[in-house]
Amino acid sequence: MSKTLDFYFDFSSPYGYLASTRVEAIAQKHNREVVWHPILLGAVFKVSGQAPLTSYPLKGNYAIHDFDRAAREHKTPYNQPNPFPIGAVAASRTCCWINASEDANVNNKLTPFVHATFKAYYVEGRDISKAEEVLAIAEAVGLDKDALAEGVAEQSIKDALRNNVEQAIERGVFGSPTIVVDDEMFWGNDRLEQVDRWLTSGGW
Amino acid sequence: MSKTLDFYFDFSSPYGYLASTRVEAIAQKHNREVVWHPILLGAVFKVSGQAPLTSYPLKGNYAIHDFDRAAREHKTPYNQPNPFPIGAVAASRTCCWINASEDANVNNKLTPFVHATFKAYYVEGRDISKAEEVLAIAEAVGLDKDALAEGVAEQSIKDALRNNVEQAIERGVFGSPTIVVDDEMFWGNDRLEQVDRWLTSGGW
Repeated sequence: MSKTLDFYFDFSSPYGYLASTRVEAIAQKHNREVVWHPILLGAVFKVSGQAPLTSYPLKGNYAIHDFDRAAREHKTPYNQPNPFPIGAVAASRTCCWINASEDANVNNKLTPFVHATFKAYYVEGRDISKAEEVLAIAEAVGLDKDALAEGVAEQSIKDALRNNVEQAIERGVFGSPTIVVDDEMFWGNDRLEQVDRWLTSGGW
Repeated sequence: MSKTLDFYFDFSSPYGYLASTRVEAIAQKHNREVVWHPILLGAVFKVSGQAPLTSYPLKGNYAIHDFDRAAREHKTPYNQPNPFPIGAVAASRTCCWINASEDANVNNKLTPFVHATFKAYYVEGRDISKAEEVLAIAEAVGLDKDALAEGVAEQSIKDALRNNVEQAIERGVFGSPTIVVDDEMFWGNDRLEQVDRWLTSGGW
């Protein structure tokens, strides 16, 4: 069984999206399996005392410019979404439902669903805060729309997401994306190369 | 006359220090001259709504870990200072005084002074918020201690620093280090490689 690369992200985070398009290649290079951890920055920020990036004067303007520039550097499709940011509860609960399934043919839809959801928001401009958009995305990657709609309403799935966010905070996660390899944490899309160097060298 | 690479930094910023040890090599590679712009993050944060990095729960712990890890990667000497952060008014005004001099033999002490001040704080553990430490550092790089002590007390030097900080904010600077090349702004020590790629490729 290969080692893991834990990838914490909020579906509403542009840097989370950008990193999601490149993290698997890095993991694969080092024979690691990406474990997707959707989190809700709104809950995290209550603990960390932060606010959405684009809400800060000066820093927000830079961020908007930098999202697009970072995307262009790697030729990643990117359209600044509107509304932005949005609440990613529906999409994140869907990930929990996929993970909780006892059907391996559902579990293996997680990665396609993550990519399709990011693409829907950051490329196609669809509002992924809406439950019906998330259901449509899920259906398109081969999930049972009706079973999902029923599943995400269950308390166990709501609890699963809440627990995941709490565990992330306990681990020290405060932003998106956050990558953890062997208990070493790296924050930011702009740290992907450093993660690669860390794994190549065995750390320093 | 070569083009410039504007480097905005707070002497109290670890990432500012770390970047200061590597930015000249990148500038030189692209035939650019580093222009040092000391700023005061305390004034910037009043506009941008931020607080010192290490004051944020979770993010602060990560930062302390990351300062040292970032230093180790490039074998840069680093000792987490205490007290931290500090006010860098004395050191920053000294830069303004050096720049304001009509003596080229004073002007050319700016770069050595910047490096010596960072080293005093981040390697030698000296409290550079104290005027007497800054005077000692200045003297060691060949500046006239008495002339400096008199100079930094002048209103014109105080105004120069205030103006520099205001101009940085007007330009959109919100953190340390910030690098600007040809009106393109990059924030963060972890963006030095991106600046290098930008200058190599001519942008994207």
